[in-house]
Amino acid sequence: MNIYGSGVTNLIEQLSKLPGIGSKSASRLAFYIINMPEENAELLAKSIINARKMVKYCSVCQCITDSEVCPICSSKSRDNSIIMVVEDSRDMAAYEKTRQYKGLYHVLHGAISPMNGITPNELKIKELLERLKSDDVKEVIVATNPNVEGEATALYLSRIIKPLGINVTRIAHGVPVGGDLEYVDEVTLSKALEGRTSM
Amino acid sequence: MNIYGSGVTNLIEQLSKLPGIGSKSASRLAFYIINMPEENAELLAKSIINARKMVKYCSVCQCITDSEVCPICSSKSRDNSIIMVVEDSRDMAAYEKTRQYKGLYHVLHGAISPMNGITPNELKIKELLERLKSDDVKEVIVATNPNVEGEATALYLSRIIKPLGINVTRIAHGVPVGGDLEYVDEVTLSKALEGRTSM
Repeated sequence: MNIYGSGVTNLIEQLSKLPGIGSKSASRLAFYIINMPEENAELLAKSIINARKMVKYCSVCQCITDSEVCPICSSKSRDNSIIMVVEDSRDMAAYEKTRQYKGLYHVLHGAISPMNGITPNELKIKELLERLKSDDVKEVIVATNPNVEGEATALYLSRIIKPLGINVTRIAHGVPVGGDLEYVDEVTLSKALEGRTSM
Repeated sequence: MNIYGSGVTNLIEQLSKLPGIGSKSASRLAFYIINMPEENAELLAKSIINARKMVKYCSVCQCITDSEVCPICSSKSRDNSIIMVVEDSRDMAAYEKTRQYKGLYHVLHGAISPMNGITPNELKIKELLERLKSDDVKEVIVATNPNVEGEATALYLSRIIKPLGINVTRIAHGVPVGGDLEYVDEVTLSKALEGRTSM
């Protein structure tokens, strides 16, 4: 149905292609956009084109950035003997927010998933091994997601990195802080028990 | 924090200004966009600019359209003796989806709300009265939202239109089809009782 005219209908169609945006949200967003001041709508449109055009991957850690080497890899204050391996740049940003980690990162851009046809060759593992050769890395922390694909990737990485004489660690599984034990699943509870630490 | 570089950060900022999009959704959308084929990102950006530029209001019913007179107002098969008054173009689209209504519409672009400084002058009421003068309208159906502002607007309209000798009706209040009586609020239940029809 084309009540609103082709401009709005086309915008609704484009917006509803985005993840998590259904047809109702798309029409709400479209109406918000057409009621925006024209310069704001242009800012939004330009930011889409610019972000898509400017996107680059750090030549060292493969994270999303807009320079050749990302600010973290080019920082002198980071500990370059530790590399944390994450699935994507957002996981890296999440760890950066903790302000606890001072080492470097490596972004795989996914996890091994034979079901979805993603083999180690699709991931930035070759680039990681290259870094392990040249840098004086003492520890690789595997911070892939705690799901089937993430665990498989962690196992794969530990198998190929350990023979290089580098320490491979995995982030702890356990109950989330602030959570309620009652609502935590059995696997997590068992993992939390296994990984208990002395007080 | 500007880990991702200015392009992506700027896009996240622009997206999070949209209604219902928080910072997490904005970053998810931004990452989806930068991983899109470049031509799709451009299509999205262009549709924003086009929709904003092309947006026009029907000179008759004030709905959003891209022509001078909207397809409904210019249709010969609609009954021009009935006008349904709605708050915005989306409400009109919702009624169009029912395929039950064959009359015309009038879009107010809001509802009377003294709290938000919206008086009858801000709404397209003058344009409605103009139509009532010239057209041979027999009935005005007030389909503003069933909330305080919508009811106030309905009352206001009925007071100024009735003296013109035109029948003013209000859409029925009652229990929604498919709903569960148990979860329906008291006011709706009372309204449903008041408005009971013989079977």
